[in-house]
Amino acid sequence: MNKNVYTFLGCGSAYEDSRVALFGAPFDGTCSNRPGTRFASSAMRAESAGLETYSPYQDRDLADAAVFDCGDLELVFGSAVRSLEQIRQHTERLLNDGKLPVMLGGEHLVTLGAVQAVVQRWPDLHVLHLDAHADLREDYQGERLSHATVMRRVWELVGDGRIFQLGIRSGERSEFAFARSHTALYPFDLRSAAEAAERLRRKPVYLSIDLDVLDSGCFPGTGTPEAGGVSFRELMEALLCFAPLQIVGCDLTELSPMLDASGASTAAACKVLREVLLLLR
Amino acid sequence: MNKNVYTFLGCGSAYEDSRVALFGAPFDGTCSNRPGTRFASSAMRAESAGLETYSPYQDRDLADAAVFDCGDLELVFGSAVRSLEQIRQHTERLLNDGKLPVMLGGEHLVTLGAVQAVVQRWPDLHVLHLDAHADLREDYQGERLSHATVMRRVWELVGDGRIFQLGIRSGERSEFAFARSHTALYPFDLRSAAEAAERLRRKPVYLSIDLDVLDSGCFPGTGTPEAGGVSFRELMEALLCFAPLQIVGCDLTELSPMLDASGASTAAACKVLREVLLLLR
Amino acid sequence: MNKNVYTFLGCGSAYEDSRVALFGAPFDGTCSNRPGTRFASSAMRAESAGLETYSPYQDRDLADAAVFDCGDLELVFGSAVRSLEQIRQHTERLLNDGKLPVMLGGEHLVTLGAVQAVVQRWPDLHVLHLDAHADLREDYQGERLSHATVMRRVWELVGDGRIFQLGIRSGERSEFAFARSHTALYPFDLRSAAEAAERLRRKPVYLSIDLDVLDSGCFPGTGTPEAGGVSFRELMEALLCFAPLQIVGCDLTELSPMLDASGASTAAACKVLREVLLLLR
Amino acid sequence: MNKNVYTFLGCGSAYEDSRVALFGAPFDGTCSNRPGTRFASSAMRAESAGLETYSPYQDRDLADAAVFDCGDLELVFGSAVRSLEQIRQHTERLLNDGKLPVMLGGEHLVTLGAVQAVVQRWPDLHVLHLDAHADLREDYQGERLSHATVMRRVWELVGDGRIFQLGIRSGERSEFAFARSHTALYPFDLRSAAEAAERLRRKPVYLSIDLDVLDSGCFPGTGTPEAGGVSFRELMEALLCFAPLQIVGCDLTELSPMLDASGASTAAACKVLREVLLLLR
Amino acid sequence: MNKNVYTFLGCGSAYEDSRVALFGAPFDGTCSNRPGTRFASSAMRAESAGLETYSPYQDRDLADAAVFDCGDLELVFGSAVRSLEQIRQHTERLLNDGKLPVMLGGEHLVTLGAVQAVVQRWPDLHVLHLDAHADLREDYQGERLSHATVMRRVWELVGDGRIFQLGIRSGERSEFAFARSHTALYPFDLRSAAEAAERLRRKPVYLSIDLDVLDSGCFPGTGTPEAGGVSFRELMEALLCFAPLQIVGCDLTELSPMLDASGASTAAACKVLREVLLLLR
Amino acid sequence: MNKNVYTFLGCGSAYEDSRVALFGAPFDGTCSNRPGTRFASSAMRAESAGLETYSPYQDRDLADAAVFDCGDLELVFGSAVRSLEQIRQHTERLLNDGKLPVMLGGEHLVTLGAVQAVVQRWPDLHVLHLDAHADLREDYQGERLSHATVMRRVWELVGDGRIFQLGIRSGERSEFAFARSHTALYPFDLRSAAEAAERLRRKPVYLSIDLDVLDSGCFPGTGTPEAGGVSFRELMEALLCFAPLQIVGCDLTELSPMLDASGASTAAACKVLREVLLLLR
Repeated sequence: MNKNVYTFLGCGSAYEDSRVALFGAPFDGTCSNRPGTRFASSAMRAESAGLETYSPYQDRDLADAAVFDCGDLELVFGSAVRSLEQIRQHTERLLNDGKLPVMLGGEHLVTLGAVQAVVQRWPDLHVLHLDAHADLREDYQGERLSHATVMRRVWELVGDGRIFQLGIRSGERSEFAFARSHTALYPFDLRSAAEAAERLRRKPVYLSIDLDVLDSGCFPGTGTPEAGGVSFRELMEALLCFAPLQIVGCDLTELSPMLDASGASTAAACKVLREVLLLLR
Repeated sequence: MNKNVYTFLGCGSAYEDSRVALFGAPFDGTCSNRPGTRFASSAMRAESAGLETYSPYQDRDLADAAVFDCGDLELVFGSAVRSLEQIRQHTERLLNDGKLPVMLGGEHLVTLGAVQAVVQRWPDLHVLHLDAHADLREDYQGERLSHATVMRRVWELVGDGRIFQLGIRSGERSEFAFARSHTALYPFDLRSAAEAAERLRRKPVYLSIDLDVLDSGCFPGTGTPEAGGVSFRELMEALLCFAPLQIVGCDLTELSPMLDASGASTAAACKVLREVLLLLR
Repeated sequence: MNKNVYTFLGCGSAYEDSRVALFGAPFDGTCSNRPGTRFASSAMRAESAGLETYSPYQDRDLADAAVFDCGDLELVFGSAVRSLEQIRQHTERLLNDGKLPVMLGGEHLVTLGAVQAVVQRWPDLHVLHLDAHADLREDYQGERLSHATVMRRVWELVGDGRIFQLGIRSGERSEFAFARSHTALYPFDLRSAAEAAERLRRKPVYLSIDLDVLDSGCFPGTGTPEAGGVSFRELMEALLCFAPLQIVGCDLTELSPMLDASGASTAAACKVLREVLLLLR
Repeated sequence: MNKNVYTFLGCGSAYEDSRVALFGAPFDGTCSNRPGTRFASSAMRAESAGLETYSPYQDRDLADAAVFDCGDLELVFGSAVRSLEQIRQHTERLLNDGKLPVMLGGEHLVTLGAVQAVVQRWPDLHVLHLDAHADLREDYQGERLSHATVMRRVWELVGDGRIFQLGIRSGERSEFAFARSHTALYPFDLRSAAEAAERLRRKPVYLSIDLDVLDSGCFPGTGTPEAGGVSFRELMEALLCFAPLQIVGCDLTELSPMLDASGASTAAACKVLREVLLLLR
Repeated sequence: MNKNVYTFLGCGSAYEDSRVALFGAPFDGTCSNRPGTRFASSAMRAESAGLETYSPYQDRDLADAAVFDCGDLELVFGSAVRSLEQIRQHTERLLNDGKLPVMLGGEHLVTLGAVQAVVQRWPDLHVLHLDAHADLREDYQGERLSHATVMRRVWELVGDGRIFQLGIRSGERSEFAFARSHTALYPFDLRSAAEAAERLRRKPVYLSIDLDVLDSGCFPGTGTPEAGGVSFRELMEALLCFAPLQIVGCDLTELSPMLDASGASTAAACKVLREVLLLLR
Repeated sequence: MNKNVYTFLGCGSAYEDSRVALFGAPFDGTCSNRPGTRFASSAMRAESAGLETYSPYQDRDLADAAVFDCGDLELVFGSAVRSLEQIRQHTERLLNDGKLPVMLGGEHLVTLGAVQAVVQRWPDLHVLHLDAHADLREDYQGERLSHATVMRRVWELVGDGRIFQLGIRSGERSEFAFARSHTALYPFDLRSAAEAAERLRRKPVYLSIDLDVLDSGCFPGTGTPEAGGVSFRELMEALLCFAPLQIVGCDLTELSPMLDASGASTAAACKVLREVLLLLR
């Protein structure tokens, strides 16, 4: 009789039968601008009821995927260190159970916890990073753990040449300089997605999508909206380029439902998630 | 591992162990003004996470109540007749299982479905109706099943002198005339709650709260807000008067989360529900 | 076949048959804070469709009143002087035709244009002013025509002891000092409504209601919300005290629908208007 | 003196002199997601005051068109069947009077009522359908009359090969399969508008525009926003392709002003309507 | 020429000449519900431009007070420990300079940093706490530093019988039990303000106002709105009771401008601050 | 100790050392549609804290520019004539001090005051006008000073062939006719930016950007949103074409933060301003 189980659309597999495990990491504690990404995963589950399981882009259906939705982690507000450790442990457990982890942020810092676990299992890990912001600062207002430093921390884990950054159109001068020496940065848009995909062939890839890679016009529901980004169609085309990759983990971050009065950004985020889930082979 | 079960705060009893059964009836199909009450029950479950289970007003705790949350009925949009029948059947099933039904609307019309079932079991049923509107029209724009006619339909089921209407401050001249002959109407506020409660002693009572009985200032999140209503404290005082009654069913209706940008009305509705649940003995 | 005529609820009399003439003055050009009162009259006409014509407070019905809704004046934005002149001329025409003018602002400055016409016809005019603000400044930021100076300009027309100010809870020290010598000011609330009404017996009265006399909690949809005001019920009680007065003109001002996302303030304004229209004998 | 007649901008012709008759069908009763399209036609009339009658795209002016605005039908909430019948009858009457009907929804289901009348007059009717969604389901949650089934119902009226669907990017797998056998479906965008127009030459065409064919970024004000859609410029280019067609009826649906806090979607809908009206020859 | 200095209205004294020093503590890092109090102090400075410096309640004027506005502290997001230390140091510096500190939150936890400094200087410190919530939990979701635990931490600093809690209407059963032994708790409203003031005569008092002590109807702009609270007028009456007290520090917390679309809550908070500043003798 | 100085990001030069002087002109008094541009400059200063000083588009940094932010002019609401005179005088003073004036509106009419001063100094002034609207009406509802007439008034100052209008997609038929004889109008988009720039080489140019040149989808936060406009990327490409020009003054107008609930339009406006400031050589 109980109808109170809410999962993301079409993610109703039993844990044992699933290949992919979705979970929410509702943390936005270091967000210095408008907050609210803590509500993203629950808003997306509710909104997904209005979505179709079938993708005409990929001609695939979530009904045929084997995805389990773990729900949200109960993270401690006020402590980034402890929240990241919770995320790391949860991801590790999923990997130990042979699942492919898919995380819904929260702010982008949550990526660090997941990558800490994934890189243990895949030492040759490469990171495919779609974002408006480089996120490569050494620290942000004196703090090393921040949404603005997350890729710098990830670089400390994976090393030079392993991070592929696409769509980047914002950062300090020093971040762009750092990228020139240490990451593969394709600025402004996603036109180089095919080239990046080619270079990532046969590597274990962690795909991290900060949804503000989308233009602030088509995706206003985020804390630091950036004009000049890509359209959903351009993002879709890029994602299709990634189909041949060996994706071993991924995340979607930075949707803030508090800033999405119309619901259109939340709906778009759901559609991105559907397509990403269908991409995993 | 699955954390995806969302129930209203503190309503985590197993069905067998519960005395009270909560369910949502997300229907707003006859709403002629601003819609959105369909989202009330799910918004209340999410919002309730920020509430305490303990009531200092009653010095009682939901942790000690035995409430099961059935989730929401899947009602058919576009057909009031069929939706009411689904509500009637569900309520009947709960009564057959010995549960006390508590329904979350939806628009006020949903009350009709529940009362249809309850009056079968309690032929001497009295209805305690808190509302801004009399809801006594014979029809509304030619339609007999409407949020504006629901108490007229209920009257057809329970008969003269069985409906006690408190807080009513809006209606057509003919509705007030009808009330004079057929219901006990205490207009404008809830000062007569104790008197009404006295008259309802030892009767089986169905308590129907249209949340717009609250002043539109303290409860703007509703489709037809009415100025001049009661404060939450006045509503609380009235509810405490009802503690000695034999309540055999109840509902809360007309919260529209789409019209509650700040969340304050949804939070208030949650608090009313907590107090109502603690009232049931 | 044409259904495109929108009037305020129940104001469908023909001009010749009407005793009261309602019109909108959608001007907010001197508003220094959040604007938007220009949209008040059209928002109220649309919202009034959800209201009843019958008032249980007065046991009277708009269906029995004889009100004509003139629609909105087409005022020139960018020129307070010209807009006031348009209002004055329109009011004069209505008076010449034997109508009682009821104006919907717009900001409070519009009152000046109407009073200019009314005082011509009723040289002994008294003004009954319900407001949060004294509006008695000599000038505002160097400008003599402003929402913050309107009652000072009115005083120049009607003279000492003719303005009765109720509910005032905000102003500069100098405004309160001015009031002590020149107006009858009853601060903070409307408890003195009966006393004021007594003193205004048998005088021609212009009733000017700045809706921010209501508490900012129950009426947030206004440009300069003031906490500490009266509830709708307190306003209703005051209005009923005014029933015996000889009201020869009146206005409602300062609703800003842009600041009323839920619609509750607009609905409350409609209800105030209904009660005011029913008050006119 | 009465200024209370509100028509869509530039649609002030007398009924007898008009060739085109505009009317609103404010029904959203089967909408399963966020509602509010019932307010579209009145919001568009109000918003159109800020629009120009002249189109630089077509170098034509509404002042030269002969359009009569009938206002809105008074539809019964809670009954899709009766509402559709009202729409059918009204459309039939317009056709009998030699008018070209242009309907403003409301949800997309309203199209069915209009097509029922139009196909009587034009048995060879073809339907040109711009939308994000295929709307080809046999039923939706057990209900055959729904916004999600409307084109399936239309197909039952016009038959195979008569429906041309452009911009479709969402639907169940079975809907796309149905389309392959029974309609001409051009997915994702409007690049095939010219080709479709070519195939529709010299046919009587009913043009049905679900405004969510636009990208959810540029048109968030709709109940089921779909990312990946076309821009307004792409829509304009497609519309210009349709200029040579013999359009015998048309509609615009699915604007929801409740979800359009900024007003930008309502303004865009007005502009689409202006261009459509200027397209009719 | 530079007009870019924004201070709270009427707080333009030079630091040396001032007796009271106002500062913002824009921290909301442990907020578990809707965030946004980080924006309160800057929103209040902007909104205060529409307020008057004169209070008719106290017949006093901010122009005669000697208040310096220090601006906002630059707190580190993601670390409650470090933010509290910054607040403590800043408060200590102000006290060393002989200033009376007035802090604008942020969430209620910021009170702890200020009290840590004030209690050093005034070992006999008493705390006058106006709030909807008891804030007396030992920990919240395992975290000892939280908006829900702040008064428990303050109790550890000041000891039994030193905290006077008014208006409390929400908390766990254990918090109310703790209060019975350790604090003076006056639940539900502020009717006991005079009694509390009497007991606090001649004591050094820290006044901490969580603005959600106000009813959620008149103050919706806060993260955890609580129905059943006091009106602004009731708050004003209580504040006037505190005029004879020796207030040595104070704060206002929990305004969240993100949840205050109309601006009315921000305006109310400004008015509370004005009255509090005028209260300090 | 005072942190209350708010300037636009990176515009912290001393007046004497600066080459560019930024100022706000918060006037929206003739706006006939949705108002609120009066809040643009202060909203942009606050929002700019989240922006980077570095532009990857131009590989330049505001830290190296020498910009002084004068703050906002205190304009008189209710008088367009006096406000324009204040703007003219302020601009003249800046020019006399050898500064390049950059103005933030307010509505587009403010451009007239600035151009009046600039054309005195540069009699050969050319105006580069990016906008959705032609703004070439002789008068608007009888008023010659209006946002809809501003370019007609500018034409009276600079004469035939001096105004280059790009992106125009809205206007009356007569405005387009006027443009054919008197201005260089490139309709619909910015594809002709390079051609216009070529023709403007070696001329003193005043750059006036009405932000509604952007598509209403990517920039909804404006009073008269126009669908069919350019994307931010298209605007950026056009701006880069203007780098070789001798820009002697410029402005950005028509952001309305009241219509920008998500903040995305305000953020986009900040980014346009950063790029424009970096363009000035």
